[in-house]
This record gives sequence, C-alpha cells and structure tokens, in this order.
Amino acid sequence: MNFKDIIIKKRDGLELNQAEIEFTVRGISSGSLPVYQIAAWAMAVYFQGMSEMETEFLTKFMAASGQVLDLSRVEGICVDKHSTGGVGDKTTLVVIPLVAAAGVPVAKMSGRGLGHTGGTIDKLESIPGFKVDLKHDEFIGQINRIKAAVISQSGNLVPADKILYALRDVTGTVESRPLIASSVMSKKIAAGAKGMILDVKAGSGAFMKNKDEARRLAELMVKIGKKLNREMVAVLSCNDQPLGRAVGNALEVKEALDTLKGAGPADLTELSVILAAHMLMLGHKFTDFAEAEAWVKKAIKSGAGFAKLQDIVSAQGGKLRWEADDYGLGTAEWVFTVTAEQEGYVRNLDAYALGNIAMNLGAGRKKIGDIIDHKVGLEILVKNNQPVAKGQDIAKIYASSETSGLKAQRLFSDAYTITDSPAMDEPLIWDIIT
Amino acid sequence: MNFKDIIIKKRDGLELNQAEIEFTVRGISSGSLPVYQIAAWAMAVYFQGMSEMETEFLTKFMAASGQVLDLSRVEGICVDKHSTGGVGDKTTLVVIPLVAAAGVPVAKMSGRGLGHTGGTIDKLESIPGFKVDLKHDEFIGQINRIKAAVISQSGNLVPADKILYALRDVTGTVESRPLIASSVMSKKIAAGAKGMILDVKAGSGAFMKNKDEARRLAELMVKIGKKLNREMVAVLSCNDQPLGRAVGNALEVKEALDTLKGAGPADLTELSVILAAHMLMLGHKFTDFAEAEAWVKKAIKSGAGFAKLQDIVSAQGGKLRWEADDYGLGTAEWVFTVTAEQEGYVRNLDAYALGNIAMNLGAGRKKIGDIIDHKVGLEILVKNNQPVAKGQDIAKIYASSETSGLKAQRLFSDAYTITDSPAMDEPLIWDIIT
Repeated sequence: MNFKDIIIKKRDGLELNQAEIEFTVRGISSGSLPVYQIAAWAMAVYFQGMSEMETEFLTKFMAASGQVLDLSRVEGICVDKHSTGGVGDKTTLVVIPLVAAAGVPVAKMSGRGLGHTGGTIDKLESIPGFKVDLKHDEFIGQINRIKAAVISQSGNLVPADKILYALRDVTGTVESRPLIASSVMSKKIAAGAKGMILDVKAGSGAFMKNKDEARRLAELMVKIGKKLNREMVAVLSCNDQPLGRAVGNALEVKEALDTLKGAGPADLTELSVILAAHMLMLGHKFTDFAEAEAWVKKAIKSGAGFAKLQDIVSAQGGKLRWEADDYGLGTAEWVFTVTAEQEGYVRNLDAYALGNIAMNLGAGRKKIGDIIDHKVGLEILVKNNQPVAKGQDIAKIYASSETSGLKAQRLFSDAYTITDSPAMDEPLIWDIIT
Repeated sequence: MNFKDIIIKKRDGLELNQAEIEFTVRGISSGSLPVYQIAAWAMAVYFQGMSEMETEFLTKFMAASGQVLDLSRVEGICVDKHSTGGVGDKTTLVVIPLVAAAGVPVAKMSGRGLGHTGGTIDKLESIPGFKVDLKHDEFIGQINRIKAAVISQSGNLVPADKILYALRDVTGTVESRPLIASSVMSKKIAAGAKGMILDVKAGSGAFMKNKDEARRLAELMVKIGKKLNREMVAVLSCNDQPLGRAVGNALEVKEALDTLKGAGPADLTELSVILAAHMLMLGHKFTDFAEAEAWVKKAIKSGAGFAKLQDIVSAQGGKLRWEADDYGLGTAEWVFTVTAEQEGYVRNLDAYALGNIAMNLGAGRKKIGDIIDHKVGLEILVKNNQPVAKGQDIAKIYASSETSGLKAQRLFSDAYTITDSPAMDEPLIWDIIT
C-alpha cells in the first residue's frame, strides 16, 4: 500500500477503507510513515472530513496502537467520564466519589491542563502528598477496595494519538471533528471502561465555541463508542462563564469539597448530579434516571460522597485538614478584589478571558513543561445575571506577586460588563444524547 | 512570525501578505521550517488556492532563493521557452536554431524527462559527444558567438522549488495551479531571459487533461511574468495524440532535424513555426507577427535553421553524420510493426498510453535515476483521422529486446481505434495568450 495514494484519495473526497486506515495508524505509531505525509493527510482530512465508518476505524486502530488497560479484575461494571474541557470544570472531583459511593467502580485516568483550561491531575496535585502515579496492581486493588482511583495518563496508552496530536498541534489541523472524536474516543476505549459519559462543552471557555459543532461532535463520539461496544451518554453543557466560582487548582479542589458537603455553587452541583446519575445508570446500578438522581442528591446530603473523597485522598497519600475551612490547601499570598463600578446586573463573564487570566497568574501552562502554582486563581463572587451594588466585590484574585495580581485585576475588569437589567439565564445543560 | 499561524490563515482562506510569503520561502530554502509544516501548508494551498498577488510573491521569492543566471553579458534581448510537457514534444530542438538564426539570443536551460514525457536534455544526449554541462563563461561565450546554447539545469537555481517540489510529489499536492505556476515561473525568472514563451499543453499526453485548467494556468503564468517585468506569450496546444510521429530520444532528434530541413510532420512544423515567430517578436526582431512567421518559414526552406543546429551541436561537442538518413543517431536492434486489423480511419491515438509504452521500452524514466536507452521508441506512421487499409502499418516499434518489443506491440494495439469515418481534426493550437 502506498500512503501517497491514500493522501490523494482523501484529498479527492473519497472514503478510505478499513485496510487503508489500519495502514495509516500503524504507519503513524511505528514511525514508518514520514511526518510530512501524515501532516498532508491530516490537512486533507481537515478539508474533506471523514465518514462515521472511517472515524470508527480510526478510533479502533488508534486505541489498539499501544497498551490497553486491563480492567478484567475490577469487580462490577467500570464507568468512565470525559470532559472536552472548560474553565472552572472541577466536576470530576465531585462526580467520582458520588459514583463510587454507590458501589459503581470508576477507573479514572486524567490529564493535565494546557492553555486556558485546567486538568484534573493538576488540581489533585494541589493536595499535599497526593500520588497520581499508581502501579497497575495498586490501581486495580484500590478500585476493588474503595471503588475509585484517579491516576495520570499512562505513557503507553494510544501512542498513535500522541504522535498525531503533537503533529496536528503544529500544523493547524486540530479543529477537525473526526480527528477530535477519534483522539478522545481512542483514549477512552484504551482506558478500558464499559460505560462512558462525555461532558461536551460549548461556549467561550470551551474548545468549541459553537453549540451546533459541539452537538455534532457529541453525536459522533456517542455513535463511535456504541459501535465499539461501549454504553455511551453525552451531556451538552454551557461554558460561556466559568463553571462554579473557583478557577485555579487549590481553589477548585476546595469548591469541589464544599459541593460534596452540599455547600457548592448551584451550577456545579446541578451538572455534577446529572453526570453522576447518568454514570450510575451506565454502571447498571439504576434503570430509572429519577431514582439515580435522587440517590446522588441523598449522597451529598448524607455526606457519603464527601466520605468517599476522603477515602480516595487517603488511599493515594493525600493529606488534608478536613476540619479546616480551606481543608489545609492554603491560598496565595496576595489577594485583590474586583469591585463593581456601578450598580446593575453582571453580564458576559468571559470564561476564555478568565481562564487566560488564571493561566497568567500561574494556575495553568502556556506551554508544555511550565510549572503550575497551585494556590493562585480567581474566585467569582457574582455570576451572570446576578445583581450588584456599586462598590460590591465581584471577584477575588489570588496571586503570588503584587505585579501579577494587579495585572489580573486590570484584565478582569475587561472580562465582564454591568447592565441595567438581567438577561435570561442560558440553561447550563442544553441537551443529553444517549 | 509563527508558521503555524500562516498555515491556519491559509487554511481559513485568507490572503497571505508579502512578509508571510517571504518568511515561508526563506524557511523552505534555509531548512528552518519543518517539512511537516510545509506539507500541511501545501495541502492548505491545494484546497484554498492563492490570489494572483500571493502567487506573484511566491514566484518572486522562490526565484530569489538561490543563484540567478546573469545574462547581462549576452548581446541582445535574450528569450526563453518553456513547455509544460507532452508526448513527442521535440519543438525546442526545432525552435531554438530558427530563433538563433535570426540573431535573437537563446540561453536555454532544459530538464530531463520523468514518467510518460521526455526531456530535451535526454534527447540531446542521444547525439554522440553532446555536452549538456557548460561552465557559465562557456555558456555566455557560445551564446554571443552563435546566439544559442542548451544546457542542463544548474544545481543552484531555485533551491526552494527543488525542496517544495520534492515534498509536493510525495504529499499529493502537485496538482495546485498557483504552486505549478510559481514552480515554473520561478525557474524561468531565475534563468534570466527577458522574453518568455510558454507552450501550455492540454490533453491525454499532457499533465493537464483539461483545456479550461490549462488556459487558467497559462493566464496566471503570463500575468505573473508580466508583473515581474518579463515579456510573455503563452501558446495553448493540444497533446491528445503525440506531437509529430516520433516518441523516443534519438528518433525525436532525427524528426527535429528533418523538420528543420522542411521534411517534418505538419503538426510539429506548425507549432514550431508559431513558437519561433512569437519568440522573434519577444526578442524585438519583428513587430509584425506575419513578417516573423514568414521569416521562420523562409529559414526552414533556406536551411538557415538546419545550419544553426549544426553550429550548436558542433559547439557543444556533438558528432553527427549530417549526410546520413539517420544522421548517425542509430536505432534499436529490434523493430516491430503495428498493422491495421481493418480498413477505416485511425482515431483516439492516446498520447498518455503511447508515452508510457515508450517509457517502458526504455525511452523514459519510471523513477529518478533510471537509465535511458536513447535508441528505443515509437514511430507513428498514421495519425488521427488519417485513412488506413487493412494490414497497413500504423506504427513501428524500436526495442532493445524481443520481449519488450512484443509487449509494446501488444499494448500499442489498445492505444488507438479504427472507425468507419474520420472525426473533425481538433486544432493543434487552440489559443494564444499575450
């Protein structure tokens, strides 16, 4: 088989067959295909797209390109969760303990943050002592013992995606629906769980700004997952403003813990409950969604979710002071406030801008390898369509230096507006695809 | 400047500015841009095209990427000729002596053949002793002495095109009008002549099958040349059947010599006269086309063109027996004939198929580095729309072995048809763009 012919076939808008896609993926992961040919292929895919069948094959062969997590020794039906990324998205920290508390096992591999969004692993590392690298036996043992473990992505999972993603990142071919779908789904397939929930976000803080595009991506990923014998649900949520109030690692862990205690922000609580309830259905714990939802709400009220998070943190070596207001997470030295210049209603809080402000404070990485400051970030006190008085605090900025804090304070004031009347609240969850 | 941003700008259909194109070309020729990014850029150009201004900048910076031929010491207005390639195209060998005989200097750099088409340098090398590598001073000296020299393309001309073309060849990005136009024109600009004629061919034997596409390419190249201060003419000609009767190196040289003696095939003679007459206009020898044409016809009749070719061959060390029927070029050992199975009219002689038959006999290269057999090839005795009797010879095949000759004979019989009535002759030259 000649890869140039495959490039030209795709360039001319024809459908690649299973053998051609297998050849492509093997060539990517083995290094036998030159990167310049892969780059030209990716750009041809960007313009011509891929059929569902092509995307399914691509996902399948990418998933098989490296190690596949063996969860056969996990007791019960393992479920997994993926978020396409947004600002303030700490739902994993809330959802996993709630699902595990119901006895449904969660073998979670999470990623680190890049750009304006954070990553679960970075957030967990703000907990002193928390180990994100477990050996396979420790990982499986912990899941069987307490029903959940969260680890950093293994180096051997889906090598074809690592190579292809790195190449797409420098060749302007990231924004391709079939390539995004196969990248996400191949990792989830290789991670071994039988049921998967996808939190597909649209809006300013998400990678997809457009709801239609988010819906199409979600539909495609659900179809591919089902073809590859997974039970799938996608929740379509909005990330125009940050989710919850906290943006930044330790601040987000604190907010997740507060939420598990029933004292979290309404939007974060709402999304976490819906995600957890669907995961309990995927884990065959419930067949009726209303029952699953009621169970999750009860687990928040009873403290069962909070207790489960304590188990997970302890099992992975994390040390928190559970009785302290900040759980011993600490905050940055410099605190600045953003205050309302007039009375009215807060509007247009821009998740993308706020994510970038947090990143520049040190909460995120501009490029791979940047060091994270876990204690910096933002706390948003007034969200979209809520009333403010003149001079009222809208947000707090936690910074490691006066300079960075003052800069963040100045930039924050351009990241929202105040108007005379509130707008209609956009629904946080705007569709669910099963 | 970040090349990823340039790729994305082109991918999104925006026009690149002069600085961005200069950055791109410099990065290609210096090696500072990774080939995978150049490949993605080329595929984005394939899909989004380029404006005339972008193509002009690309041509200009490519031309300047290496050595530029200094023709300042050539006396007179130097003219050049380029053919986009076809089967049986030996016009350069006919045209150059005719133009030089009128006193207009021709500094010609020619290429070698690849695939189903031949190259002027390969054809000249079928002349025993002919030197295609001259030092710059020899080259200029010969032009001033006898008004013409033909050499092989220099290694230092347009290095950016060499790199980009090699990459396009393996990434499915050859068939892009702005990339073809800038590749051709950058080499012609760097080759230094002030006036250029382009023989843009369409049809089965040409790289462009489609007349509309050929016309658009010709118009684009003429515009770019003019913007870069060249006098330009493009002749649009047809290559559905081979030009002339001979396909193969020594056979084509013989046919060119016969044509200069007034005994050439009608189509080759017609195209050569038109091309030469336009070149005399470009060289400011004539201002009236009819006068130029009459002069060229006279130079064939008087033998002035033939004498000039003798001068060129001698000057470059070539040894021919001018009085012999085959000029001492020799022919291959095995000769086979293709005969008509029925009476009627020959139709649909397929230049592409015949070019490939000749290549497989050894007249051309399947891949770079293949060795050429100068004496093999085809002689087509009956061309499209000419009558044949049953059993009449339609073609001769000159082969170096019985096996290859028999195979060519078998394949040739699939490369034409015989019908009861002739079709209308397609015009050989179907437009001229000035």
